[in-house]
Amino acid sequence: MKTLEIKRVESADRRFTLHDGAGSDAVHSVEQYAFACTRLCTGTSVEGFGITLTLGQGNQLVCEAIEQLGTSLIGFEIEDLMRDFGSVMRSLADDSALRWLGPHKGVLHLALSSIVNACYDLWAKYRGVPLWRLLLDLTPEQLVNLLDLSYIDDELTVGQAIELLSDLLPTRAARESILKSGYPGYDTSIGWFSYDDTRIRDNIRKALDLGFRAFKLKVGSSDSARDLRRAELVRNAAGPDAKIMFDANQQWSFRCAVQMCSALQQFDPYWVEEPTHPDDVNAHARLVARVVPSGSL
Amino acid sequence: MKTLEIKRVESADRRFTLHDGAGSDAVHSVEQYAFACTRLCTGTSVEGFGITLTLGQGNQLVCEAIEQLGTSLIGFEIEDLMRDFGSVMRSLADDSALRWLGPHKGVLHLALSSIVNACYDLWAKYRGVPLWRLLLDLTPEQLVNLLDLSYIDDELTVGQAIELLSDLLPTRAARESILKSGYPGYDTSIGWFSYDDTRIRDNIRKALDLGFRAFKLKVGSSDSARDLRRAELVRNAAGPDAKIMFDANQQWSFRCAVQMCSALQQFDPYWVEEPTHPDDVNAHARLVARVVPSGSL
Repeated sequence: MKTLEIKRVESADRRFTLHDGAGSDAVHSVEQYAFACTRLCTGTSVEGFGITLTLGQGNQLVCEAIEQLGTSLIGFEIEDLMRDFGSVMRSLADDSALRWLGPHKGVLHLALSSIVNACYDLWAKYRGVPLWRLLLDLTPEQLVNLLDLSYIDDELTVGQAIELLSDLLPTRAARESILKSGYPGYDTSIGWFSYDDTRIRDNIRKALDLGFRAFKLKVGSSDSARDLRRAELVRNAAGPDAKIMFDANQQWSFRCAVQMCSALQQFDPYWVEEPTHPDDVNAHARLVARVVPSGSL
Repeated sequence: MKTLEIKRVESADRRFTLHDGAGSDAVHSVEQYAFACTRLCTGTSVEGFGITLTLGQGNQLVCEAIEQLGTSLIGFEIEDLMRDFGSVMRSLADDSALRWLGPHKGVLHLALSSIVNACYDLWAKYRGVPLWRLLLDLTPEQLVNLLDLSYIDDELTVGQAIELLSDLLPTRAARESILKSGYPGYDTSIGWFSYDDTRIRDNIRKALDLGFRAFKLKVGSSDSARDLRRAELVRNAAGPDAKIMFDANQQWSFRCAVQMCSALQQFDPYWVEEPTHPDDVNAHARLVARVVPSGSL
């Protein structure tokens, strides 16, 4: 019996203008957010939508990649597709020609993320449940089948992943208390890079009133004193019990990251995000070793 | 005084059909090579050309990225551009919006490489010398100024790079003997993945007649016995003094790479290329530790 078949894959290039410095950080100053959107058409009113973020320029490249990668989904029924979605993901990424442009990198990576989001969206809509519910109702085996663990089986085999999840099954119900209490979020908009001190203080006050207890500040200024002054401002405005995080958006060299992370310690950060080149795994490990975390990490 | 100004940046999407399994490897089976080409137009007959390779599909994405990135080169004079080309490269890659799609990844990375090639080509043509000559005639300081060393200054500072090159200056003339003797190349076309044994043997014989003494074989078969049989064939056909290399094109998991690299040792490989995920730096380090190299590496 047919479930719900993907008949067509469309993309859409949607761009939105930001205002007054919203979205600014140490390396991105454009005032645009854009989404490369995937639409999985089924010939019914149930369709799957996925998005991925870019900063505008080049968004159409991601859209083109979505349409090219998406052709291999056409004709699939959604339940068949999701049954062993890890393999589907691998074969999508491993397209014999397009993988040269990726496979999990840049434009192709972004396109894959938009497509994957759309597949999950269509699946949940087909089943008529929220995606979180759908995922919670899967067995550990079904959940692991959604993932592509290729290349990491020396660290985590399929069997080990299933075991990890199985071990946590007995306490799952207790964790569902967040359905009532809510899941704590953080406010990432209080401290964009170009915001002045007054605005940051105002934003934190408003966010505190809304119930937020965690706040992220953009750092990575060429003027390190500015970063430190604003970090202190956020800590003071948010209070000693708040979680505060700093995001350098890859701006620092390793040496600079060591200096700045050390200097920022006094404000008890919950994390420092993208302190240096995001792909330099060893630099991150060395950074952790040099900068003793003072917070709950 | 004006030198030579870049007035327009064009791209071209050029695709070529391969025949009879040429170009095949363990993960790429398409029979097409394509080039995303950059053309730096100057309004004179002296133009700069650069290329980057793809496997066809998606090549137009790289071409679009070339044109978008290339706009920032317009109006530059070639000598000004190359004087501090390391900074130019960094600012090209760090385009405030497009870096989100890269910066040194996938489509954007490929586009950058094509553009960079074209800049060097235009520079050498403007000076009326081959590029190798131009580079050899630069001082260590000028050479290092061509490079973007950001993010690696904890391993190699600009000063250290200049010192490395300066130390080698006294022996440079001796190394120019390769202008007479030639630089040894290797034949990468003797053993494409889909070639049968007879064809590989024939190819090696022909390449030996042409003077080649180094040969690369595509491995990474799901049938490991096939890899080993073909590796032995290449060693036997090439002779004990030849250099032979194997290329797995990322096909192996880490565990598989350990097994296969160990098994291939008996054929004394000069290198094994892309034994596993190319970005897994730690896996490569662990692989070297586990598989003791028998060759000159």
